[in-house]
Amino acid sequence: MALLFALVIDPAASDDPRSDFADTFRVIDPSAPALSVGELSTQRGDGIFESIGVVDGHAQETEAHLERLAHSARICDLTAPNLTQWRAAVQVAAQHAPRHGEGVIKLILSRGVEHGPAPTAWVTVAAAPDNTAVREHGIRVVTLDRGYGIDTPAKAPWLLLGAKTLSYAVNMAAIREAKRRGADDAVFVTSDGFVLEAPTASLILRIDGRFVTPAPNGGILHGTTQLSLFAHLEEEGHDTGYATLPLSALAETDAAWLVSSVRLAAPITAIDGVEVPVDAELTASFNRYLLSPRD
Amino acid sequence: MALLFALVIDPAASDDPRSDFADTFRVIDPSAPALSVGELSTQRGDGIFESIGVVDGHAQETEAHLERLAHSARICDLTAPNLTQWRAAVQVAAQHAPRHGEGVIKLILSRGVEHGPAPTAWVTVAAAPDNTAVREHGIRVVTLDRGYGIDTPAKAPWLLLGAKTLSYAVNMAAIREAKRRGADDAVFVTSDGFVLEAPTASLILRIDGRFVTPAPNGGILHGTTQLSLFAHLEEEGHDTGYATLPLSALAETDAAWLVSSVRLAAPITAIDGVEVPVDAELTASFNRYLLSPRD
Repeated sequence: MALLFALVIDPAASDDPRSDFADTFRVIDPSAPALSVGELSTQRGDGIFESIGVVDGHAQETEAHLERLAHSARICDLTAPNLTQWRAAVQVAAQHAPRHGEGVIKLILSRGVEHGPAPTAWVTVAAAPDNTAVREHGIRVVTLDRGYGIDTPAKAPWLLLGAKTLSYAVNMAAIREAKRRGADDAVFVTSDGFVLEAPTASLILRIDGRFVTPAPNGGILHGTTQLSLFAHLEEEGHDTGYATLPLSALAETDAAWLVSSVRLAAPITAIDGVEVPVDAELTASFNRYLLSPRD
Repeated sequence: MALLFALVIDPAASDDPRSDFADTFRVIDPSAPALSVGELSTQRGDGIFESIGVVDGHAQETEAHLERLAHSARICDLTAPNLTQWRAAVQVAAQHAPRHGEGVIKLILSRGVEHGPAPTAWVTVAAAPDNTAVREHGIRVVTLDRGYGIDTPAKAPWLLLGAKTLSYAVNMAAIREAKRRGADDAVFVTSDGFVLEAPTASLILRIDGRFVTPAPNGGILHGTTQLSLFAHLEEEGHDTGYATLPLSALAETDAAWLVSSVRLAAPITAIDGVEVPVDAELTASFNRYLLSPRD
């Protein structure tokens, strides 16, 4: 989808207490040149990002995304983002999202221009693709080895495994590999046989009536949509939890979803060619909830 | 170092047989905005690159870099670059490198603007930093777990381990971790105890008079500088080879270097705090060779 709006942010000190940062925003033409070739985001994928879903002009779960942006910045030794400033930028961006229907606001914080004085930061807005079909008819996934052991993230923080970095080439390659295999998406697994996450989504399984997701032990992102959905499920009286899930859990699941900020809840219809039952009614209720205004 | 020159390339079909591609190059101001925020290089580190050393205006080992660019493109499912076009771009770039002393030409091939019709490609030129001190006095390195097993690259090509992608955030994080530990650079090792490469350089060890480097079995890049130096060493009557090197090889080495296109040969003075002998005379001869015109 073509970008509808973009805003370059002059990053403020993280302890700048102002409430109004409007003078630090500069609206740009999203299709015009805006970044120099010296940008470290473009030279080395050296930066972090967030994608926020927008429904009827409302940015969903902004706080959870801002917290994760700050978390990624810590892991990557980036200057802490001033969340008041970013919150204000999200509000401006939301005003330029489609008034009706779905959109996506993307936040990017780059280490800046090489040898430059400061990070570079910007926000973009686009209409979301139409995800109705995948929400209703589901997706086929294949498991792909992420190459790491389950204990690697704790031992090797320089691998940045818990950060949402701009270095996403592997995530994109995994989706291409899934398509080559006749599937729609991938589920990463560790080299020692534990289930992780999808390249751009969290995995939720229902096993014996309980909703479980792989524990965000540093190796995977803590999904904002998964968090929101689990809170909703708890309110509805369901049992939810985090677990270290072996591959065998995939055979035991009686329903499974990939959930993310823009595609929302996509039911999994098959894993590595083995069919998975779909709970169409529950999936529809998930997406109704996820499409309702959430903060 | 500030960029001296930049050229945007309109990518040609890989089988376009022209010899002159000058009309596909557009000189840009390297510090001015040139890329849109929709660029996939910047959004997802989705692209590949090469860094070519330049000495007194001569681009070193251009063919080896072009071949590796094509190799990376294959791994990443990018359209094959037209190497005649890229070769011509390197020649133009070299004319804008410093006439005397050292420079660096960087080639970048991005998947393009999201949902756009074509890849984006550009070339930059900068003066190289002064590496005299590290070439003479050497560097201290620490070993860091790369998280993978030695057999992972062959099993999981979607991890893109043999490609020089723009997703370099981990490489940069490893160098920061090395500096936190009081060293200058890192040497990646596999989770099962084999030696790989540095985040931006190849490792060469001299063991019992033989020069060895970890085999480029898909998990590491085939270093252009290592290749060039091995050819030189063979001509000088030395024995060289590729090997699967366990960590214990580091304790047996009687000299070690990190070699790369711009820093050239940096002797290693210590690995994880254990001193390594430096052969100053041989290192100086390496750098004299690497600073001579090479094709």
